[in-house]
Amino acid sequence: MANEKKLVEKITARSDDFAKWYTDVVREAKLCDYSNVKGCLNYLPNGYAIWENIKNDLDKRFKETGVENVYLPVLIPESLLQKEKDHIEGFAPEVAWVTHGGLEELEERFCIRPTSETLFCDLWQKMVKSYRDLPLVWNQWNSVLRWEKTTRPFLRSREFLWQEGHTLHATDEEARERCEMMFKVYYDFVTEDLAIPLICGKKTESEKFAGAEDTYTIEAMMHDGKALQSGTSHYFGHGFADAFDIKYLDKENNWHSAYETSWGLSTRIIGAIIMVHGDDNGLVLPPRIAPKQARIIPIADYKEGVLEEADKLFRDLKDSGLRVEIDKSDKTPGFKFAEQEMLGIPTRIEIGPKDIEKGQVVVVRRDTGEKMVVKRDEILKKLPEILEDIQKNMYATAKQFLDEHIYEAKNLEEMQQISAEKIGFIKAMWCGDSNCEDEIKDKTKGMGSRCILEKEKKITDKCVCCGKKAKHVVMWGKSY
Amino acid sequence: MANEKKLVEKITARSDDFAKWYTDVVREAKLCDYSNVKGCLNYLPNGYAIWENIKNDLDKRFKETGVENVYLPVLIPESLLQKEKDHIEGFAPEVAWVTHGGLEELEERFCIRPTSETLFCDLWQKMVKSYRDLPLVWNQWNSVLRWEKTTRPFLRSREFLWQEGHTLHATDEEARERCEMMFKVYYDFVTEDLAIPLICGKKTESEKFAGAEDTYTIEAMMHDGKALQSGTSHYFGHGFADAFDIKYLDKENNWHSAYETSWGLSTRIIGAIIMVHGDDNGLVLPPRIAPKQARIIPIADYKEGVLEEADKLFRDLKDSGLRVEIDKSDKTPGFKFAEQEMLGIPTRIEIGPKDIEKGQVVVVRRDTGEKMVVKRDEILKKLPEILEDIQKNMYATAKQFLDEHIYEAKNLEEMQQISAEKIGFIKAMWCGDSNCEDEIKDKTKGMGSRCILEKEKKITDKCVCCGKKAKHVVMWGKSY
Repeated sequence: MANEKKLVEKITARSDDFAKWYTDVVREAKLCDYSNVKGCLNYLPNGYAIWENIKNDLDKRFKETGVENVYLPVLIPESLLQKEKDHIEGFAPEVAWVTHGGLEELEERFCIRPTSETLFCDLWQKMVKSYRDLPLVWNQWNSVLRWEKTTRPFLRSREFLWQEGHTLHATDEEARERCEMMFKVYYDFVTEDLAIPLICGKKTESEKFAGAEDTYTIEAMMHDGKALQSGTSHYFGHGFADAFDIKYLDKENNWHSAYETSWGLSTRIIGAIIMVHGDDNGLVLPPRIAPKQARIIPIADYKEGVLEEADKLFRDLKDSGLRVEIDKSDKTPGFKFAEQEMLGIPTRIEIGPKDIEKGQVVVVRRDTGEKMVVKRDEILKKLPEILEDIQKNMYATAKQFLDEHIYEAKNLEEMQQISAEKIGFIKAMWCGDSNCEDEIKDKTKGMGSRCILEKEKKITDKCVCCGKKAKHVVMWGKSY
Repeated sequence: MANEKKLVEKITARSDDFAKWYTDVVREAKLCDYSNVKGCLNYLPNGYAIWENIKNDLDKRFKETGVENVYLPVLIPESLLQKEKDHIEGFAPEVAWVTHGGLEELEERFCIRPTSETLFCDLWQKMVKSYRDLPLVWNQWNSVLRWEKTTRPFLRSREFLWQEGHTLHATDEEARERCEMMFKVYYDFVTEDLAIPLICGKKTESEKFAGAEDTYTIEAMMHDGKALQSGTSHYFGHGFADAFDIKYLDKENNWHSAYETSWGLSTRIIGAIIMVHGDDNGLVLPPRIAPKQARIIPIADYKEGVLEEADKLFRDLKDSGLRVEIDKSDKTPGFKFAEQEMLGIPTRIEIGPKDIEKGQVVVVRRDTGEKMVVKRDEILKKLPEILEDIQKNMYATAKQFLDEHIYEAKNLEEMQQISAEKIGFIKAMWCGDSNCEDEIKDKTKGMGSRCILEKEKKITDKCVCCGKKAKHVVMWGKSY
């Protein structure tokens, strides 16, 4: 018990210091750590395995909609980055510049890609000639680099892993459809596989991506009530295509502008998994994405037959397609329990001499802590059901938390009061003027517009800030 | 027929100009192309899909041996790259340097990783304290950058995709075992999944990796008789560990050096697939790695029922787990056949009104061109057999070519003569002196040592070059 306690004590309680709790979990669950390359992370096996599962699941969803994967260079020539005006303004201050190759100084600088719109445009300008060449629906899984000043594991680092999808279309309509389709893919993936409930909608003018006409966002609420932007899908119109001179001949032999989208989801989402589901015992992983869904812990394994039975259980579960492991280390059971909880493995299965005698095992759920006695000959059938129930319960718990932490405000005083007293989001009307956005942020100590709720019922007719005619219902929140 | 001819005419014959044939195939099969970032490639959907299959298959093999995936930064501080003397000498002349981050000049330069030994060492130095922390058996799938002067698709480019495995062990013995194990994994993967026969063994002193004690290599023979180094596994001893001060406490509480390995296989291997299996009609892909294993081509598809039957066939094959597609474009059948051949899809399935009437389909093998009539109700059973037979036949054909192009030489004159008159490899004895290696290369216009054949029966007792006592049987060959 001494060991067990010691392990758990290492974590700060969420209610004491949420930020410290977060970094404690990341460290103790060995997900990633700071590298000696300032601002960059080392993604360790436990963290990277989560990302691999995210990749596999999301990639499958992409491919079902016709996405093809590609890989474009890590470097962008300075002249290329500068071709689209808004884009270069958005990214120039935060890129890393390569000035020397081998022993020579380069004639033109290259930046390490902060995102790859310009490379895709450059390639498509060469490739696309006719309507027959369209649409192009491409994606790449890669890393990008942005010279951030502050770093937090998964949430903000100079280099991060993501996917960036880029598509080119003959018509405005088709491009808009693709933009919304990928936004929907993110929504389904995050709610179904990661058990994270979402708020979603369009970004306001000042919050959208550099160069985009529209940016759609999915936003999740962390346990401290702050928002995490978890995936975005951008509609570019023909802005990039015009800047890069991407045209195609239509069926009537007339030249036309092409229309573009891009969409991305990054390792930030691992931060969301931690901060939505984690508790004071550590990480809690949704079963669909957990690298291991169950850890078997033999009890009194020095007694005859225990290890053999545990091994048999392990093989049976593995053969049935579950992701399972067995802890045969010489640590105490208490320590092992605490470790399994810290790592967020959705279930642990205890099997000892008495269980073997009674033909049973003990399953402990990570999400609720509930202990269940399951008959040994029913475990192959029961465990998938338990995992599915955990997945559902995790979503329901997070959804309840989200719903309980959304408030409505009719005027700025109400917003200020709620923001001062409560954690969470505030729904309020907005006139569409970015000055009001700035003022709201300033007066509420950081409530920024998360997104416009397009189909939401309006609260009043007036902007919460200036009192003029309101155009949109907006979700406001402090954010990471 | 006019279209068909035109498509095929675009490719140079292998016998006319092998180098041009190669670039023609890469272009016409749309595998990759040169980007506007000098020396870097765009990996297009057809090429990247091959790499994805390679990744999936090889990654599965890695994980079966206990490998865990991680991701370390794209940047290496100059001081870190310099820690191991041989390593920095090998890589310093060919790295790209980042000197500015955002708007500021950096205090220390970073290079874009040419390989990541130094990053792994730096991390392990912090992490490893006890024998309990070992072994570490890690791998990452990433891109690396080396400032090459000349570029050829897949074979040599500034940025390329690969995996780099890095492992750390308590004992010399365990590290050597891992080094040889991964070498064996490469061998099995390339021969079984890519149908490429291999020559393998240790590299000579002058050909081994910068910093390694031993480098094991797998070498394939291209259709022009040249070698392509296709994967390497390095044993480092404790050289890197000492340079980075990686030590661990053993069970008796004594400090010990740790032992290291690394191993890599890159997108170069796609070049090997092209140059081993391709023919004058284009690419020929081994079924196990082909993104699509069959393409269905409806014949006279304007006739009633043809498209419906073709669609049904497509769904049946897809549901049975085969990677299959259907060509419903408005091109002529001749053009479609030529295109399927160019892309290297292992089989095409023709289905027209007569076939439907007779309850059959026509399967055409890409490797041999053989046409087979298969009963419609047997195709689900037959196609996997045909694909397996293609896989075996491709290996057998390549193996025969390899065996027929290996010669033996007893002295330098013989080597010179063979090298002048034949394409292929030459087996010959070597004393172990690098001066002889240089002289052989010089006098044979480029026959370098590919590897030492450790278990091979010796040919004579004398070095083929200097006539002194021979130490090794060596495979010599010109190489990419």
